[in-house]
This record gives sequence, structure tokens and C-alpha cells, in this order.
Amino acid sequence: MEQVKLYDTTLRDGMGGKGMSLSVAEKLSVVRALDGLGVQFIEAGFPSSNPKEAELFERLAELELKGATISAFGMTRRRDRRAEDDEALGALVGSFAPMVCLVGKSSLLHVEKVIRVSREENLAMIADSVAFCRGEGKRVVFDAEHFFDGYREDPAYALACVRAAAEAGAENVTLCDTNGGSLPDFVAAATAAVRADLGEGAAELGIHTHNDAECAVANSLAAVGAGARLVQGCVNGYGERCGNANLASILPALQLKMGFAVVSAEQLASLTQTAHYLDEVCNLASDPNRAYVGRNAFAHKAGMHAAGVAADASTFEHFDPALVGNERDILPSELAGKATIRSQAEGAGLEIDDEAATRAVERLKEREHRGYHYEAAPASFELLLRREAGVYRPLFKLESFRVVTEKRAGGVVETEATIKVEVDGERYVRVAEGNGPVNALDKALRDAIADRYPHLAEIELTNYKVRILDEAHGTGAVTRVLLDSADGEREWGTTGVSENIIEASWEALVDSLEFAFQPRPVAAERE
Amino acid sequence: MEQVKLYDTTLRDGMGGKGMSLSVAEKLSVVRALDGLGVQFIEAGFPSSNPKEAELFERLAELELKGATISAFGMTRRRDRRAEDDEALGALVGSFAPMVCLVGKSSLLHVEKVIRVSREENLAMIADSVAFCRGEGKRVVFDAEHFFDGYREDPAYALACVRAAAEAGAENVTLCDTNGGSLPDFVAAATAAVRADLGEGAAELGIHTHNDAECAVANSLAAVGAGARLVQGCVNGYGERCGNANLASILPALQLKMGFAVVSAEQLASLTQTAHYLDEVCNLASDPNRAYVGRNAFAHKAGMHAAGVAADASTFEHFDPALVGNERDILPSELAGKATIRSQAEGAGLEIDDEAATRAVERLKEREHRGYHYEAAPASFELLLRREAGVYRPLFKLESFRVVTEKRAGGVVETEATIKVEVDGERYVRVAEGNGPVNALDKALRDAIADRYPHLAEIELTNYKVRILDEAHGTGAVTRVLLDSADGEREWGTTGVSENIIEASWEALVDSLEFAFQPRPVAAERE
Repeated sequence: MEQVKLYDTTLRDGMGGKGMSLSVAEKLSVVRALDGLGVQFIEAGFPSSNPKEAELFERLAELELKGATISAFGMTRRRDRRAEDDEALGALVGSFAPMVCLVGKSSLLHVEKVIRVSREENLAMIADSVAFCRGEGKRVVFDAEHFFDGYREDPAYALACVRAAAEAGAENVTLCDTNGGSLPDFVAAATAAVRADLGEGAAELGIHTHNDAECAVANSLAAVGAGARLVQGCVNGYGERCGNANLASILPALQLKMGFAVVSAEQLASLTQTAHYLDEVCNLASDPNRAYVGRNAFAHKAGMHAAGVAADASTFEHFDPALVGNERDILPSELAGKATIRSQAEGAGLEIDDEAATRAVERLKEREHRGYHYEAAPASFELLLRREAGVYRPLFKLESFRVVTEKRAGGVVETEATIKVEVDGERYVRVAEGNGPVNALDKALRDAIADRYPHLAEIELTNYKVRILDEAHGTGAVTRVLLDSADGEREWGTTGVSENIIEASWEALVDSLEFAFQPRPVAAERE
Repeated sequence: MEQVKLYDTTLRDGMGGKGMSLSVAEKLSVVRALDGLGVQFIEAGFPSSNPKEAELFERLAELELKGATISAFGMTRRRDRRAEDDEALGALVGSFAPMVCLVGKSSLLHVEKVIRVSREENLAMIADSVAFCRGEGKRVVFDAEHFFDGYREDPAYALACVRAAAEAGAENVTLCDTNGGSLPDFVAAATAAVRADLGEGAAELGIHTHNDAECAVANSLAAVGAGARLVQGCVNGYGERCGNANLASILPALQLKMGFAVVSAEQLASLTQTAHYLDEVCNLASDPNRAYVGRNAFAHKAGMHAAGVAADASTFEHFDPALVGNERDILPSELAGKATIRSQAEGAGLEIDDEAATRAVERLKEREHRGYHYEAAPASFELLLRREAGVYRPLFKLESFRVVTEKRAGGVVETEATIKVEVDGERYVRVAEGNGPVNALDKALRDAIADRYPHLAEIELTNYKVRILDEAHGTGAVTRVLLDSADGEREWGTTGVSENIIEASWEALVDSLEFAFQPRPVAAERE
């Protein structure tokens, strides 16, 4: 099988995305995760004298990687000076990184309007810079910026730029759709023209696309179809405007659908986990609808589809989700019928009779109408089933709680919660301070019932999300809270809905703790 | 110019998306918005006897549309019965809708495993159902479900299904990539094969794709390139799993890049507004990175790009955003330098000297580090600039506030806020109840300062969003609040960040009100 290599630019081009800002430690986590996935090249950014970048390159130099090569990014030399005298190129070749990626212009419009040099000087800037880096012992990738726009305006000049880089010793020339507006047919035709112009045996071709026309993945695949053997992008498609090409979609297409060798089967099976982990490091919510790796990517909702999947999964799935480490999911939802409810109950080890299943369907509908969503809160859904099946055990009886938040001029905000509950006939009154109302309430509740439930100490709230459901109603809208919890063995999600954020949080909190203490034959929950 | 028509299925296939649930009134709003955009066909769902669907069709029948045709959706007849005796087909032809879309199988795997009829009976089901609906005076679109998978398994049978529909009188046969796993080259080849098999003059072809391989847009365009003249999908790509093909990306590509006539230039210029409006009706947050219509789609952050755009927008934009009703945006951000700060200040009508600009850059960096994001909160950003430029005017002086939330067993939660402030040397103490802590605080504050600022009554909080920044720390993480406000003339966004959600909300609230009362020469703010 022919090989296609991946080149991830999350730490450089990806950082242009809104909300992207990573510490050195987080950048190292990204590198380790990409290396584990089998990404061949990882672009780390520009090795400038900026202390943060300097520290990153220092620590990268010491990092032991399984297979990835670190690439340092820079521009071709400035005009009217020798490459040897260009400080930025000096910093590039001075870095430990065995590979450099040099970006240069390949569009006449940019040569004339943006950098304002002659067409000959631009070609010299490319050739000199590549030759200089090669002479300093670096492997060189040349990024032909705005190549496709340049090829549209003046194909001969765009090809000349690519040739200049290849002839000066670049091992790879990557064609960039920098503005992201090209469509696949054109990308394929232009890539094939470059391949023909360079001839076989010359530099390898790469592709670098952006998603401004929602075609970045297809454009990357089209270029590979026309001869490119390296794909630049970001796992999860991070980046400025509409993002870079999403390597998490390109990798499985290349390997499972187009027959190229990219990473090992084990590495491919870690794709979903890696993609979600990277979102976590970048502090972004994972898009549940993302291709291949999204939580909904293999979620079957409507009755007919769910039935088809039960008969033969290949009828409604384009491939086995396990190959990318994702999994099938049949959702509780408004469209669910009694059959789904019963199979969900079975999964939770509950026996539920026909009448209870009917009640559960009704209850589910009524609650979804009020804004509940159980898809990310299967533990709350199980509690709903348990109540209808008559096997629900409450943890405690609430007498009352009170949460007070106070602020004085110039002072910090202070929050305390008082709670009064009864467990097995005994009354507990507790107060706790917290860094927010929900945190204070959580602490007070735990303090109140900890004597009776020592296992509580092992339960940690791992994730707290708030969604305002009817955003158009300002601060008077309905709030949905999602809470993830874990006890070292299992993870579970719960939910609460109310106009009052404290009440919604309280509901999710109580569900979280109650779920942990329900009597059950086997412990087999997954979020 | 050749015409391509759009067929939106938000109200049918789009409703399979997680979180999608619309009332009859909301569905009518969707229909009006799609009609305004110039979408030619709008699929309304199945006209069943279910009261909600019945009401929808009743009200649709009375709706005056500018140009769109309503289509009713249903399946081919059940096996072993005449089309005339099939109740579902009866409901379809009984509806007012002038067009019906019949979905039928075109994959042998599905014929054999899912509906379990003979290959001949499936062909008869298609032909009978189409002919019956035609006989009842309906225009018929036939959706060849799983066509591309079927064509991969057994091209002759897949083609026979399409022919059966075309010969029975379907005006359009739409080829469906139901599982969404096909790639553009294959879609183009299979579509071209159908076109050749049917011959010119026979039924028009349509395309219906899903985004499971992140190629739904490219697949739709590939099919049009191979002869399809109708594209099914959803504006914004709503739908089960990874969604349907996104018509908001397909429309501008067809019209601006491929030279087809789809809608008028005025309609195209309403695309961004329509896409955002539909998200609002569906109660979904608009993805800011969406192609063409996303808030970030033409946002330039990094220095070089912003400079290029200033020189000639076509250097860094694939087309003029005004054509789809979007606009260019240069963002405040960590990467912003003094030049950007000064241009932002100018935009707000502020004079800011070099020293103040330097301080603003520092302050911005420090705040972004703590979790602030000013991209959606330009009003808070302006207040930051004002503080550094020395033209900030506080509204009031806070002495203290206290928010109390109480709950008793079985009772509703009650919340009240007490606030003590000073305005122009006078002290105001007020208390208010609210349906949540932020709502109570908002009411109490307004009550306290309303005498001094009567314009307050016109300011409405239109949108309140909460984001937990470090989700991995449970209820102890940092909270970012975004608040949108409007006074009938302008809209503005503010933000607050704190470990305590009440403090974060308070900060955004105070910014919102203060922004409205800052002295300014001209009123020219946009969010």
C-alpha cells in the first residue's frame, strides 16, 4: 500500500482559531497526543526569542517521541538581503528541529500587492531560503502560500515558484489553499498539473487546505488522488476563520476508504480518544456531530434506522465505528418507543414491565418537552427508569437549603450554603463555604451525608456544564446543567433543568450522588 | 445560466438531529425563512393523523409563500398490497401539498435484510407508488435511499430502481448517500452513470448527502458537476449523526463559484441572516466557524493576514462577504498589537495615545490569560479601552449586594437579591425577587439606579450564556458569562469571568449597563 503522511499544524496555524491559547505544558501534551496517534510531522511554531517559544523548543528538544518529527515554521528570507543574513532564517536553522517548513508566495497578486517585490526577486527568495536551510542540514518542506489562487491567476508563475523550491532541494512542496475557497475538481486539476510539471522523482507534493468553502477535507483527498502524499491540517480542524483541514476526517478516509497506509490499525483505533483529548487540552467543547469521532457520529435515533442497525449495522453505518475507536449509540429521545426503553432498562440491569415502560415513555416525553436531554446524562435517565420500575432508593430527605452570595465594594465575593437533611430518621444540619453557589451546596450536602455514605469521598465531580436553553430570554431563561462524575471505577452523567440555575445544579448534583448508591447487580455503566 | 434548485429537509430529515424539537409555530417560521431565501422546495414532513402534524399541514395550506413549493414526505407502499390500499400513501395524496417525496430502497442489501422482499417486489413497490401519486395529480420526487451503497454492491439493480421511478413518472430522482460515507469522486462517477443510463430528457436528477465523511458539501457539488440539478439538504446542515448536507455552503458555491443560477442576488445576500435566524428558531448556538455564514468566517486575527486584508481584501478572502450578507471582522486578541488597539479605539470614537495603547495591550493579554474573551463582548472591550484612555465613567458605586436562594422540601426555589449602591453621593438600598440569582440581582440593581437613569427601562438583556472554562475541575472551575443587550437602537455584548458564577454575571451585567451610558460622540456600535 502506498504511504500518505500527516503533518499537523495545530501549534502554528491552528493557534489562529478563536479561543486558542495554550501554555508550554499544554503544547507538549498536544505533541505527545499527536505522536501517539502516529502523525508523522508536528509543526511546533516559529523558534523565536520570545521566552514562551524558546522554552517550548527547549523542552521539545528533550522530548522522546515514538515516531513524529518536529518541524519549525518560518518564512522565506526578506527581500534584498542574503539568506545567511536573515535573522529569522538564522533562528530556524539554529533550532534543534530536524525539519523546517518555509512559507513563500506563489501568487503574483501577493507578490505585487502584499510583499511588493519583483517576480524574479520572489523566486530568488524561495530558492535562496530553501538552499540555505538545506545547506545547514535541515529537511525542508516548502509551503506554497496561496498556490491555488496563484495558479488560477497565472499558472506559469505559480508553477515556477514550486519548481524554484523543488530545484533548491525542498523534499516536499505543499500546495496551499490559504483562503480556503477552492473546490475539489480545481484542486485535483492543479495538483495534477504540478505533478506533471515537476516530473516523477522530483520533490514530493503536499496539500494544505482551509475550510472556508466547507470543502477542506474533500480538497485534501482530491489532491491525494492527484498525487499529493503529505496532508497538512489539524486534528479537529482548528484554525482561523473556518479552520484548517480536519486530519481526524482525512486520516480514516485515506486509510479505510482510499486504501492508503497512514498509521497503524491500533493508532487509528485511538483516533476518537485523541480527538476528544485534544479538545480538552485546547479547552474547547467537542462538537458532537463531528464526522468519525463525534459522540453522535454513530448515534441512531429514528425508529427505522435503529431497527436497521439492529438487523445489520452495515445497513446504516458507513463503516465499523470501532476502527476509529468510536461506538454505536442508540439514544433515548422523544422518538423512542417502549422497545427502546426496555432495551435501555435491560442495559442497566433493571426489569421493567409493560406498564412501567409506557409510563417511562410518557415521563420522558414530558421531561424532554421541559428541556431535559438525557443523551449526555444516562445516569439521570436510569434514575427515571428506576422510579417507574419501583427500584429507586432516595439517599436522603431534604428539609431545606439556603445559599447566600455576598459582595462588598472592592471585595471578593463570598458564598456559603446551609443544608438541612434527614437520613434514616436522623437530622443533619451543615454549612459550607464555596467558590460559587453550586460548589458551596455540593460541599454542604456531602458534609451532611458523609457519615452515612463513606464511599462519597471517592466520588468526584469531573465536569460541570451550563446551557441556557432559551437564550433569547436573557437572565429569565431556562437553564440546563450537565454534571459528569467519577469514582475511579465508573463515570456517569446527570442533568437538571430549571429557570433557576441553583435548582438545576442541585437536581444534577443529587442525581449524581443517588446514582452512585443505587442497589445494582452489576456495575456496568458508561457515559 | 443553468438552474439548480434547492430542496430543504430541515422539517423532516433535519429533525433527527440531537436537540431538534420544534413547535408548529416554529416550523412555520422555518418555512417562511426558507421561502424568503429562495429555497425552491420545502419538505414539511409526513402528513400523518398525529394532531401536531395535522395542524402543521393545515396551517401550511393557508400560508402564502413567495416562491417555495411544499413537499410532503412518505415511503413507497408496503409490500403485498396495492398502492391504492396503502393508508400512508393515501394520507400523502390527501394532503394539500402539490409535491410528494417518496423514499424507496435502491440497495439490494436493504431490500434483502431490512424490508425483506424480493428484488422484483421492491421495483414494483417503487413503480406502483410513484404512478399512484402521479395519478392523483401530485408532482413526485423519488428519493433512492442508500443509492450509492447500492450502486457499489450491485450497480445494475440500483440503476433498475432509479429507472422504475423515472419510468413511472417521477419528475426527479434523487440519489441518496444515506449513510454519508461516500467520497466525491465516487459520487460523481455514479451520478454520471445514472445520467447516462436514463438518457437526456428523462427525469431530472437530485442529490441528497450526509456529512459522515465530512464531505457532504463536496459530494453535493460533485453530483451537480455530473448532472444533478436539485440538491437536498438543510440550511446549517441539521440532522442525525453528523448532519445533512449544508445548503448554506452549497448555495454560494453553486452560484458564486460554479456559475449556476440558484436564487437572486438579493436572496443570496440574506443567507447569513437566514442561517443565524434558523439557528435561533431551532434554539441552537450558531457555529462561529461555519463556512460563508459563520461570525468568524471572515475574521482576521494574525498580523500578516490583517495587514494583507487592509492592502487588498481579495488577497485573504475567497470572495466578498457582502455577497452572502456576512462581513469582515478584525479581532481583538492576544495576538493584537498596538496598531489593532488603536484602530479599535478609533472605531469606538476614542482617542488613545501611545502609552495608553501599550497599557491596553498589556491589560488585554493579562485578562485573556484569566479567561476573558472579548470577541463576543466588544462592549466590555470598549470599556477596557475607555479605562486606559481615561474616558470611563462609572454608573454607580457598589456598597454591597447579597443574593439568597432557598429551597424547602417539595417546594420551589426562592431567590432574592439585596443591593446597596451610591449614585452621585446618594445611597440606594433595594431588594428584588427573581427566578434565579442573576435575574434577582439584575432587577434589584435596575430598581436601585432607575431614578437616575430612566433610559434603563429601554435596555433589555437579550441573551445570556454561561461557559465553564476549565471543565475538568467540576464545580470549582472558572465561569465565563456572555451577555447581549439591546435598547431598540443598538445591540452590544459584554462579558465577565470569575470562579463564582454570580460574580461573573454581575461583572457582565454592570458592563452592559455602563456601556449604554458612556458619553460618546456618535452611536455606531455593532456586536
